[in-house]
Amino acid sequence: MPVPMELCRIMTSDISEGQYIFLREIDGERTFPIVIGLFEATSIDRRVRGVTSPRPLTHDLIVSVVENMGGELQDVIISELKDHTYYAKLRVRHDGELIEIDARPSDAIAVAVTCDPVLPIYVNEDVLNDVMREQ
Amino acid sequence: MPVPMELCRIMTSDISEGQYIFLREIDGERTFPIVIGLFEATSIDRRVRGVTSPRPLTHDLIVSVVENMGGELQDVIISELKDHTYYAKLRVRHDGELIEIDARPSDAIAVAVTCDPVLPIYVNEDVLNDVMREQ
Repeated sequence: MPVPMELCRIMTSDISEGQYIFLREIDGERTFPIVIGLFEATSIDRRVRGVTSPRPLTHDLIVSVVENMGGELQDVIISELKDHTYYAKLRVRHDGELIEIDARPSDAIAVAVTCDPVLPIYVNEDVLNDVMREQ
Repeated sequence: MPVPMELCRIMTSDISEGQYIFLREIDGERTFPIVIGLFEATSIDRRVRGVTSPRPLTHDLIVSVVENMGGELQDVIISELKDHTYYAKLRVRHDGELIEIDARPSDAIAVAVTCDPVLPIYVNEDVLNDVMREQ
C-alpha cells in the first residue's frame, strides 16, 4: 500500500557531495532521509521557498512537457529500495490511462513540488518498512 | 528559415558562474556561444563524452516522459533572441501533430544530445543574423 508522505526538511551543503531531503508520513510518525544531488536539492529548495524564474528551469520543463502532450501529473511514488538505491515513478494520466515513468526520487520530488498544487508524494509500505528496519 | 547547427565546444569552469556552449553552422562558417548554467553544461558534457548513469538523470527523464507518452522528439530549435536571452523549443511529434515546447537552449541542447541518435539542432536565421551582428 502506498503511504502518503510529505517533504519535511531539505539539508543542502555546498561543500559535501550528498544533500538530504527528509520525507515524513502524513498520518503517522515515520520519517526518513534520502541522499540526493546538489542540483536536485537546489531545485527542490527553490520551489519550496517559492523562488520563481523568468524562464522554465529543468523541472519546470518536465511539467510543461507532460502538459503540452495533454497529460496530467497525478502523483509520485517511491516504489522500491534495492541495494540502497531508491526507485521512484512519476504517474501521469494520459488518454484515460495511467502511465508510470521511472525516475530518481530527487527528480520525482522536484517535479511534485514544481506543480501547483504540489503533487501527492507516496512511499510504498514495503519500502517504508525496510527503511525503518535499517534505521 | 531554421539553420542546421551542431554543438562544437563546451567550456565548463567550476569557479565561474557562466559556462559556455558553442554552436557552429553545419553548412557554413558561423559560430556563436551561449552562456548556460553549470548543471546543464555538466549534463551536456557527460552525454557528449558518453558517460552513462545507472539511473535516469534529469534530461534522460525528459526524453523518457516524451517516449512514455507516445511522442517522438523531432528536433530542437533556438527560435528567438530577446533582451540578450535565447529562447528555444523542443519539437515533439505526437498523435500526428507537431508540439512545440518552450525551453531554455541549455535544456533543449541537453535533451538533443541525450537522444540516440542526437536530435537535429536548428537556429532561426533571424537569430543567427542578430547574433553575428552583435559579435
